[in-house]
Amino acid sequence: MSAIEETLQRIERASNVTGFVILDNAGNVLRYRTDMGEENARLLATCFKPLLERSLSAVRDLDPTDTLNFLRVRMRELEVMAAPGPGFVIVVTQRWWPTDWPVGKV
Amino acid sequence: MSAIEETLQRIERASNVTGFVILDNAGNVLRYRTDMGEENARLLATCFKPLLERSLSAVRDLDPTDTLNFLRVRMRELEVMAAPGPGFVIVVTQRWWPTDWPVGKV
Repeated sequence: MSAIEETLQRIERASNVTGFVILDNAGNVLRYRTDMGEENARLLATCFKPLLERSLSAVRDLDPTDTLNFLRVRMRELEVMAAPGPGFVIVVTQRWWPTDWPVGKV
Repeated sequence: MSAIEETLQRIERASNVTGFVILDNAGNVLRYRTDMGEENARLLATCFKPLLERSLSAVRDLDPTDTLNFLRVRMRELEVMAAPGPGFVIVVTQRWWPTDWPVGKV
């Protein structure tokens, strides 16, 4: 099994992960977590592709020699994380809770 | 001393923090860490205000009932964190290193 498949399986198994989408640089959905459904995968892609582009240009404006490594957007209960790779971006959604919150309290 | 002043002093004292800026909702710089200089404070504001707005709309598009809680943009060595508040936004920059990296290796 390839390292990518292993990584994706690890992401799938993580109990607080609610979905993931892999996009190409044009924003096309290459792959997504099967149980999230194509519609949710496309919604995530549509919402977060422009944000990734905005993040890349904010980083470039701040320091042209630097690059975006990782993006984390935290909402009340959901967290969206995105990591650009060579020719693709992976976007993962997970539930989060404050560290002092008893696990399993949801 | 107000809770805000205490919080800002704690941020200033954090050894890996390299700067902070407080903006109003129009993106005007209300306050910044004195040793970063006004020019850097304005650069940070100019780069990250549009990104915050993009994040707010990405969150609203994904789930209209949710809201942006915290944004973290990680670059190679620098990390920019932004937290919206009532009528203001605080943006903090800090150096980061992987957790398995011996502290003080920089």
